[in-house]
Amino acid sequence: MTDERTYDVVVVGAGSTGENVADIVVRGGLSAALVEAELVGGECSYWACMPSKALLRGTEAIAAARGVSGASAAVTGEQDVQATLARRDSFTSSWSDDGQAQWVAGAGIDLVRGSARLDGERVVVVTGADGTETRLAATHAVALCTGSEAAVPPVEGLRDVDPWTPREATSAKEVPGRLVVIGGGYVGCEMATAWSALGSTVTVLERGERLLANAEPVAGDAVAAALRGAGVDVRLGAAVQSARREGTEVVVTVSDGDGPAEEIRGDQVLVAAGRRARTHDIGLETVGLEGRGYLDVDESLQVRGVPWLYGVGDVNGRALLTHMGKYQARQAGAAIVARATGADVDLSAWSPFVATADTEAVPSVVFTDPQVASVGLTAARAAESGRPHRVVEYPLGNVAGSSLHRDGYEGTAIAVVDTEREVLLGVTFVGPDVAELLHSAVVAVAGEVPLARLWHAVPAYPTMSEVWLRLLETWRG
Amino acid sequence: MTDERTYDVVVVGAGSTGENVADIVVRGGLSAALVEAELVGGECSYWACMPSKALLRGTEAIAAARGVSGASAAVTGEQDVQATLARRDSFTSSWSDDGQAQWVAGAGIDLVRGSARLDGERVVVVTGADGTETRLAATHAVALCTGSEAAVPPVEGLRDVDPWTPREATSAKEVPGRLVVIGGGYVGCEMATAWSALGSTVTVLERGERLLANAEPVAGDAVAAALRGAGVDVRLGAAVQSARREGTEVVVTVSDGDGPAEEIRGDQVLVAAGRRARTHDIGLETVGLEGRGYLDVDESLQVRGVPWLYGVGDVNGRALLTHMGKYQARQAGAAIVARATGADVDLSAWSPFVATADTEAVPSVVFTDPQVASVGLTAARAAESGRPHRVVEYPLGNVAGSSLHRDGYEGTAIAVVDTEREVLLGVTFVGPDVAELLHSAVVAVAGEVPLARLWHAVPAYPTMSEVWLRLLETWRG
Repeated sequence: MTDERTYDVVVVGAGSTGENVADIVVRGGLSAALVEAELVGGECSYWACMPSKALLRGTEAIAAARGVSGASAAVTGEQDVQATLARRDSFTSSWSDDGQAQWVAGAGIDLVRGSARLDGERVVVVTGADGTETRLAATHAVALCTGSEAAVPPVEGLRDVDPWTPREATSAKEVPGRLVVIGGGYVGCEMATAWSALGSTVTVLERGERLLANAEPVAGDAVAAALRGAGVDVRLGAAVQSARREGTEVVVTVSDGDGPAEEIRGDQVLVAAGRRARTHDIGLETVGLEGRGYLDVDESLQVRGVPWLYGVGDVNGRALLTHMGKYQARQAGAAIVARATGADVDLSAWSPFVATADTEAVPSVVFTDPQVASVGLTAARAAESGRPHRVVEYPLGNVAGSSLHRDGYEGTAIAVVDTEREVLLGVTFVGPDVAELLHSAVVAVAGEVPLARLWHAVPAYPTMSEVWLRLLETWRG
Repeated sequence: MTDERTYDVVVVGAGSTGENVADIVVRGGLSAALVEAELVGGECSYWACMPSKALLRGTEAIAAARGVSGASAAVTGEQDVQATLARRDSFTSSWSDDGQAQWVAGAGIDLVRGSARLDGERVVVVTGADGTETRLAATHAVALCTGSEAAVPPVEGLRDVDPWTPREATSAKEVPGRLVVIGGGYVGCEMATAWSALGSTVTVLERGERLLANAEPVAGDAVAAALRGAGVDVRLGAAVQSARREGTEVVVTVSDGDGPAEEIRGDQVLVAAGRRARTHDIGLETVGLEGRGYLDVDESLQVRGVPWLYGVGDVNGRALLTHMGKYQARQAGAAIVARATGADVDLSAWSPFVATADTEAVPSVVFTDPQVASVGLTAARAAESGRPHRVVEYPLGNVAGSSLHRDGYEGTAIAVVDTEREVLLGVTFVGPDVAELLHSAVVAVAGEVPLARLWHAVPAYPTMSEVWLRLLETWRG
């Protein structure tokens, strides 16, 4: 027997993106069902942002205190690894979603647990754990917020060694003795930083010539140097050829293209080599779409060619970050409500219904030491885009606030200036504890605040934010 | 015999403000003399911002590490007080201005050491330590950047006990056993925080009903609670009636208006009860101005009625903060250069020649624990101004980034919104380590970024900056 229900909006996937779409449409007066096969709250709450930052924060706080002569004398002990793991568990609510399910109910959203598949126009069929089926019909819209999942590259034997994905790396209950990390992107770098500080002997294998390939080059260089300083074996230009288990050991074969292949042995291997859309097996073919890859959406996150269908968050591949998923959820939610009520939907840049920041102002922080905080275009991306621009750089350690913050502070600030409009296209900060500096750049970039006005945005002395003044002075020459 | 020289511009006072005026006009192609009677670099470098933050940073870093379960286990020792004092000394270059004098020379500015007095139109007479006189004639402008000094209130006996002013409090070579602080403004609160953490038994006497009277009320309340938690005796509504010495002790008599006066004994007393302009004894009367009080200047920092004379920095009383003095220096310097070269000087708001931020966007950070970081109008000032506004408040501890940062994080974010223009009039953050969050608010306020656009300025997750999203959601309701 199939239960049949009708809602204004059916949201598939109850990660932070889906939760926010459902919340916005309900606040807008529509009814909504929210479907989830795993934990309500999704990747970020249980297997990404929250646990990874909880694993890193203690290390970061200790480094900050050790870096200040006078304070360093107080740091005579070691981090309590069990306490840090317990703290991580508390931030994931020990992987229970009771609190989030309660929030969903309180928000007036109907939670439907099970696996969802589209079944033709405006219909979603949910199969519960017990095999029961619920057929959800959507009057106005279906929002697919199924997110992304770790991609395991097609390396011989790699799947068979049962590698960690970011999920296992963030939720591990014990510190691995030797950890081999495949991939030097932000997940690989953060997990190498975290587990190394907690006692693992870590090797990072990055195929390219640099860590953090999408960031300004100075970022990857600084993080590589710091990881090496912390005892991590960072190998660049390292192509993984195969993997196998020998007893409890994992053996990874690596080639740097020149010499003979080398074997690296570990107790665990983490594959942090990119993500892919979770679009397989959700019935896309029943509505005339190809059943794989990222969803192709317009600026209001509406799937092109299917006006009642939205693809919001990681699933559209525009910007695979929790905060961008939530942002898209607000914009798409507003568009869904407006269209349902017959209101105008302004599709021009920066309107309340479009996700313009996805292309112009995506912020991200890599919580390594040094941290890497960036928004908008890097110099390389600006060059690719063909926009007229100039790159302005300033050593963050030359700012009084930085040297007060940590002895011998080293860091870099880079601004990419649109020379035609004299606004910022992008900003990157590399250095210890720069995470909270970033939002100033986000406001400047997303706000398209002219440089002439930024001279009036005076940084408080002596904070690290004074680097803004130095960047402007460097720009002026 | 008097040495006579002529410059395009004569700058009186080589604190950071005067240094910046001289630098800007020299970069603009003018010649400049810079006169200083004390240390080149001024108050901020030797007796204010730099040493006070150096005294506080170790305490702050230790508190941050102690506040993270897991990390706290590593903090088993105590701060090394001597190392902290030595670190403070290094940030003041042990009160030597060699480095700064070298910078001045390198910038092409002529440094003239001695006490300066105006001597009629466009003339400054400098008396050196050896009694020699130098007569400096200015072709275009004289900029008075003499700053401010600690005011000692007219309390019976107070001057006679030889109290600390902020200068002595920031440069002390030893930790006082018992320190009595008169004044609960930002200097009193910072010095109470610093010296208490370094071992002093501290009493704070504040005449008003709250610490940090100019900030949002929640700020003073939070700082008072924290100081008390750290063992500081904070007395509000405490009027100091008299002071006297008894042997090595200082005895301060205090009344709370109700009961009998009480005697408080200490080893040292710090008077942190406001500042006054350093305008006495600089010859203002020779150019037809009254010889005391803050200089009355226009938006380009030109003294009203005396077109060749500028009053820049603390001396004009507009915003007594190092970074605002430097800002004014940039704006006034640009105006001086423009006027000297016959260029147009646009006096409209936010032009390169006016200090609009002095009234619209003054940022300040109080480096207590919790820190208080604010820009623009408080709710109270907005009400006084008569501008249509609404106050939006959000508990900073509810943000994921804050609870990751410190266990049990407590804090508050307050935004004052102009309901007519839908831009921010002011923002205050109260909480541990909020200093670097401030510049995002400075850019938003000085940039007059509309709230509609701020929705597109996405905070990176999970940083404390996510509070921006919560403030916007609270505003929307």
